[in-house]
Amino acid sequence: MKRTYKKEDFPVDKIRRFLEPGPIVLVSSKWKGTNNIMTMGWHTVLEFSPSLIGCMITSANHSYEMIRKSKECVINIPIVDLLDEIIGIGNTTGAVTDKFAEFGLTAEEAEMVKAPLIKECYANYECKVVDGHMLDKYNFFVLEVVKAHVAVSPKFPKTVHYRGEGIFMISGKQVDRHEKFKKQNL
Amino acid sequence: MKRTYKKEDFPVDKIRRFLEPGPIVLVSSKWKGTNNIMTMGWHTVLEFSPSLIGCMITSANHSYEMIRKSKECVINIPIVDLLDEIIGIGNTTGAVTDKFAEFGLTAEEAEMVKAPLIKECYANYECKVVDGHMLDKYNFFVLEVVKAHVAVSPKFPKTVHYRGEGIFMISGKQVDRHEKFKKQNL
Repeated sequence: MKRTYKKEDFPVDKIRRFLEPGPIVLVSSKWKGTNNIMTMGWHTVLEFSPSLIGCMITSANHSYEMIRKSKECVINIPIVDLLDEIIGIGNTTGAVTDKFAEFGLTAEEAEMVKAPLIKECYANYECKVVDGHMLDKYNFFVLEVVKAHVAVSPKFPKTVHYRGEGIFMISGKQVDRHEKFKKQNL
Repeated sequence: MKRTYKKEDFPVDKIRRFLEPGPIVLVSSKWKGTNNIMTMGWHTVLEFSPSLIGCMITSANHSYEMIRKSKECVINIPIVDLLDEIIGIGNTTGAVTDKFAEFGLTAEEAEMVKAPLIKECYANYECKVVDGHMLDKYNFFVLEVVKAHVAVSPKFPKTVHYRGEGIFMISGKQVDRHEKFKKQNL
């Protein structure tokens, strides 16, 4: 049995907390009644409010057209317990594989988008594609996070960060230095 | 005395190894004879070859115009030993502070750009701005890494990853799963 989480609504202007550290994420999408998942590491926060994320998704990916056409997806943040699933999802294609079934993951209904949440992930960010102008040149989607669900505990997830060539870095300890910051920079 | 590193040339199409995990980086720039440094966490890899990075730099930053006008910068990757400097650099402005002097860092000459390398960082990626079309809307620079210098050891650096609100995550252990990948996906 995979671990699941009790989740709460999370302010969309604070979703950087779990994304800016740079974890591998699972992107779920839905198009013409079919769900899919891909593994992604090339993303960045772009703005607090509106809550914008930029991400590069190779057009060779089955998910690319699903996201481009549906103009929606969910950014799901898995923890290290799902490392085998992260790798398996990245090494298969939704063109021939039902990844939810193949990897024992649960598709939950989202609130603001048709793409499903992955129940076994620590956090789920429901996203709308708000700018596709950089797709032709860079396969770069600009997404707005319209709804965020985050696990109540643990406070910080043990995420997986990719170095390429099959090597992952697992997130380590937290250091709180807020007292060293100017208030307006926090 | 801060730690310095023996460095070697590193293939630019493999720079993701230290950037994709999502560390806080120090961006150095030079304009009209003056050096500057800023702290940055909003970046993503965009392409292997040419070696492209995208990054969001708020236009309120002193470095923004320096990079936009010089069309160059260096992405320097610091390790956790430099946490105080990372915070200090992020909480001061190059408009009034010489950050190399203030934070005891050494500006080394780069090979392909005028912006300086920070000697005390683990890796230095010399970058040219290759696309500024997304600056007006998103403050988003597209950079090409034209030369990379990386420390010979340790093999993987203990980097600093930002969560916002003064809280950092420090990179943890490595996990090698290359045997689980399809060869073309490595």
